Amino acid sequence: MIEIDEKDLHYWLEHVKIYANNGKVADYIPALANQQPEINATAFYPIGDKEVACAGQADYSFTIQSVSKVLTLALALIQHGEQAVFSRVGKEPSSDPFYSIQKLEVEKPSKPLNPMINAGALAVTNMIRGRGSEEMVEEILNLVRLLTDDPSIEYDEEVARSEFETAFLNRALSYFMKQNGIITGSVEELLDVYTKQCAITVNVKQLARIAAVFANDGKDPDTNQPLLPSHVARVCKTFMVTCGMYDASGTFAINVGIPAKSGVSGCIMGVIKESGGLAVFGPALDEQGNSVVGMHLLKDLADDKRWSIF
Amino acid sequence: MIEIDEKDLHYWLEHVKIYANNGKVADYIPALANQQPEINATAFYPIGDKEVACAGQADYSFTIQSVSKVLTLALALIQHGEQAVFSRVGKEPSSDPFYSIQKLEVEKPSKPLNPMINAGALAVTNMIRGRGSEEMVEEILNLVRLLTDDPSIEYDEEVARSEFETAFLNRALSYFMKQNGIITGSVEELLDVYTKQCAITVNVKQLARIAAVFANDGKDPDTNQPLLPSHVARVCKTFMVTCGMYDASGTFAINVGIPAKSGVSGCIMGVIKESGGLAVFGPALDEQGNSVVGMHLLKDLADDKRWSIF
Amino acid sequence: MIEIDEKDLHYWLEHVKIYANNGKVADYIPALANQQPEINATAFYPIGDKEVACAGQADYSFTIQSVSKVLTLALALIQHGEQAVFSRVGKEPSSDPFYSIQKLEVEKPSKPLNPMINAGALAVTNMIRGRGSEEMVEEILNLVRLLTDDPSIEYDEEVARSEFETAFLNRALSYFMKQNGIITGSVEELLDVYTKQCAITVNVKQLARIAAVFANDGKDPDTNQPLLPSHVARVCKTFMVTCGMYDASGTFAINVGIPAKSGVSGCIMGVIKESGGLAVFGPALDEQGNSVVGMHLLKDLADDKRWSIF
Amino acid sequence: MIEIDEKDLHYWLEHVKIYANNGKVADYIPALANQQPEINATAFYPIGDKEVACAGQADYSFTIQSVSKVLTLALALIQHGEQAVFSRVGKEPSSDPFYSIQKLEVEKPSKPLNPMINAGALAVTNMIRGRGSEEMVEEILNLVRLLTDDPSIEYDEEVARSEFETAFLNRALSYFMKQNGIITGSVEELLDVYTKQCAITVNVKQLARIAAVFANDGKDPDTNQPLLPSHVARVCKTFMVTCGMYDASGTFAINVGIPAKSGVSGCIMGVIKESGGLAVFGPALDEQGNSVVGMHLLKDLADDKRWSIF
Repeated sequence: MIEIDEKDLHYWLEHVKIYANNGKVADYIPALANQQPEINATAFYPIGDKEVACAGQADYSFTIQSVSKVLTLALALIQHGEQAVFSRVGKEPSSDPFYSIQKLEVEKPSKPLNPMINAGALAVTNMIRGRGSEEMVEEILNLVRLLTDDPSIEYDEEVARSEFETAFLNRALSYFMKQNGIITGSVEELLDVYTKQCAITVNVKQLARIAAVFANDGKDPDTNQPLLPSHVARVCKTFMVTCGMYDASGTFAINVGIPAKSGVSGCIMGVIKESGGLAVFGPALDEQGNSVVGMHLLKDLADDKRWSIF
Repeated sequence: MIEIDEKDLHYWLEHVKIYANNGKVADYIPALANQQPEINATAFYPIGDKEVACAGQADYSFTIQSVSKVLTLALALIQHGEQAVFSRVGKEPSSDPFYSIQKLEVEKPSKPLNPMINAGALAVTNMIRGRGSEEMVEEILNLVRLLTDDPSIEYDEEVARSEFETAFLNRALSYFMKQNGIITGSVEELLDVYTKQCAITVNVKQLARIAAVFANDGKDPDTNQPLLPSHVARVCKTFMVTCGMYDASGTFAINVGIPAKSGVSGCIMGVIKESGGLAVFGPALDEQGNSVVGMHLLKDLADDKRWSIF
Repeated sequence: MIEIDEKDLHYWLEHVKIYANNGKVADYIPALANQQPEINATAFYPIGDKEVACAGQADYSFTIQSVSKVLTLALALIQHGEQAVFSRVGKEPSSDPFYSIQKLEVEKPSKPLNPMINAGALAVTNMIRGRGSEEMVEEILNLVRLLTDDPSIEYDEEVARSEFETAFLNRALSYFMKQNGIITGSVEELLDVYTKQCAITVNVKQLARIAAVFANDGKDPDTNQPLLPSHVARVCKTFMVTCGMYDASGTFAINVGIPAKSGVSGCIMGVIKESGGLAVFGPALDEQGNSVVGMHLLKDLADDKRWSIF
Repeated sequence: MIEIDEKDLHYWLEHVKIYANNGKVADYIPALANQQPEINATAFYPIGDKEVACAGQADYSFTIQSVSKVLTLALALIQHGEQAVFSRVGKEPSSDPFYSIQKLEVEKPSKPLNPMINAGALAVTNMIRGRGSEEMVEEILNLVRLLTDDPSIEYDEEVARSEFETAFLNRALSYFMKQNGIITGSVEELLDVYTKQCAITVNVKQLARIAAVFANDGKDPDTNQPLLPSHVARVCKTFMVTCGMYDASGTFAINVGIPAKSGVSGCIMGVIKESGGLAVFGPALDEQGNSVVGMHLLKDLADDKRWSIF
């Protein structure tokens, strides 16, 4: 059992926060461009009905962005099973950036390579059950409420609207997949759901709890009640390792070696096997779109605590 | 001066119409899928105030589809000049299919390779002047009316609507270009104009007259009045040679060797230097999307009449 | 501790050997095309000075082919360190086939994506120390002798020669990298070393022992003496997970979830954390170039024994 | 008939020679890197037994480099016919650079797009008749001697050797094609022939005469004796228009509009229909690898003399 306490988190966060200067807040999404780069926070949620530990501005709320890709994947797997989900989206890592469209044209049959790139995540969201976008968003919110044990979880309407209005690239990906039968129904409705799932807001303590559920093989870290089927948790963790950190996933697997997922708001959740969930937030991003402070914190902690699963 | 009379056209059309069996009507556009493959027609419009010659169902009306790409290019060049137009679209032939999106992602800066592929044609249409799509369509229709000397030219509303509703790929291309600043304004409005320009209807005699204007360096083939600036006509003819026949353009240049443009309705217009314009229609298409009957007719006539400009 | 005994291996090998019918012996390498598809074997080498367990034709010798990529990577890391090695080859998984050349042209600066694709493996072999190819091969052989604890390990001269004579694709990759400064010196000499490392022969018991060293973090599974630095073992295992099974690596991570490396001779080595090394041989390959019998055996054992590290 | 006299050439060469400052001598071929950028020359060889006109250093000898691609294409067409040649190489323009390898991997079946890119030219040279490279080179030299009416034409041994030693990219292309059955026999022998054909030396007067033969449909510009079959001349001219100027061919077709071929030594030959052949030399190249002075001279002359075939 790997032990992490608040002193650890304080120490390491202090140590790495300077790196925020090396990154840049995501400026291509208007609602994210206003985030203050000096904000940072981290939390560790242990398995076994123990106290969450945190450091920095741990009550600061942020949108989960691409972290939602893991959650909709879990939901789609629960609702439809592996066979159905993987008939629409592949399982292979991609060396292209998360927004890339090329492979959709090159691959025959056309299928997004995995559910962690935008095209794949859009195809997965398209599968979520619900009559209309409102019901679909509610399904996703309910899963996040379940995993965080917080029924008040909502999405940020302003961020959602801002992303919806500028989601030209995601529209291009969606229409391309609609042409190829990967996506069905209204693209505008799909974009409505997708931009809302990305805009779900949490703080690091809540995000750490989500990670802790995965670390506990899908079970509640406090009560051990099953929240996700264990094989669903396992599939999600596998994708987090092979494709969770955009096109820096391979490097992250070598440097850190744990299942993790980042979002362009500057959040990262990391899954520490049989120990707990770690979340870190810092909006300054590196070139691959990962939080600079988050990457350094995870690397240093992983070295110190020997987290790598490899 | 190359002479072509009605006897020639009858002879060669009889000779090649059997090849319709080797092709397939475009089935990805619902409104085109109903076309009868056995219909065919051809016409030659000579320069010099002489009678148009024709063979087959010469009064049959069809939509011009991609032939419209040449006409909007001419219009954009007249309205904005070469520099402005070629800041948005390139001049190089592409070896990729007309619907391809890859190069938009790969090329830096992102710019469609030329105005004859869909991406390039959409970027050109986006430049046409007009407050709203209705005025833009009217601008295009007026050019076609001028070139055909027929003020009654209209677009087919049913075909336009059918293409609009299924234009997922063109939406993907447009949103991708909007993301990259190549296209501005509403994508839906652009698609409205684009699907209407593709649905403009003519018969082979009218299409042959359009080609004859290009053959006469932009001047009316009957009156010699200038209808297009001669350098605009020349630029259009150059693109017809290097990129006019989709990804069979290079082969066509070797086998036939004249400026030509095809449309997936099954029409082709060919420009015979200092002689006149030839049009041919036959909706059965080969794999590249060119009329099978049209390709054979042009090849045989080009061999017989030594049309090649090379 | 996961226990595997000979009964297990017999049972599961019997169970899966029928799948050989679904595969095809690698026919593009003349010396491999003669392999008999019905041969199969498996062995498990436990950590902790216990007996190796095996089933099938466990003394049958085969060439290690791409398994050698892991071993030269380990050797290069020992000889030059991470920084030097990863200045020549990347860390990211590729969705392209192992023989692909495209990305070398597209990526700027040009660098093979990872050491498990052919381009990357050639770049790594190019770094191995030695005056001339003979010394370089000896270095590699010595590592294999150390890991197998068998000083008699050699390469198969006939297979090496056969691959050398037909290695047109690897020459293309090498010359392309030489043009871009990734590879230095004589390409023919590099190919000489590379085809010999691929032709090193072992049986499943020896291959399982190599895997057991990785499972034991680089230490001898019997004596616990360090044979490889533990961080080198960890880096190698990470690559085995993200890129070890050609372009089926992502699927394998989900279905099996252990570090593994396959070779086109039909061998696979799998690393079972803290437990031991498993090797399997069966020359009939699936479309990705992985042993069909091997893939089924690993999948079934992983399900039964809950091997997944995720 | 377009008239060009020495006064014209002097005037225009003076006018454009300043642009040499905007270009850069090819530095990736050691033997070319020494060329002096301020050297320039031009010549016009008229049809009809008239005097050649020239300006600048018209007796300066240079290697023809990629201009040889047109000549080996002509030779292969004469020796094997269109069907055989185009079973090995395509007819479509490429938007990729002349040295690109990607499309060879992407296109199924693998075939170089056209004979003007390096891959295609290598495939064509591979078809030239001859027992061994010496006889093949002699065949090519004999064609150049015939077209220039100068039996003393040779290749530059130093340039050939220099290019042979550094032709890593052409080796990569050749081995890739050998893997795919496009190229047969020894790659080293092919490279030997190819680098020698590129190193054939001429001056602008001789190069202008070669162009004049194409302008005269394959016939000697002085005597009208057939030197090349007219259909072979026509096919070559067509490729010069669609792919003759590397990936600036489309732009050149619009700006100049004549069949032309450039070489990285800094030479360009241009074919003026029914008039004659123009050659220009200036070793400073633009980004596409075309002579800066040459491009400006051709553009200005084409504007002034209305050369465009379109």
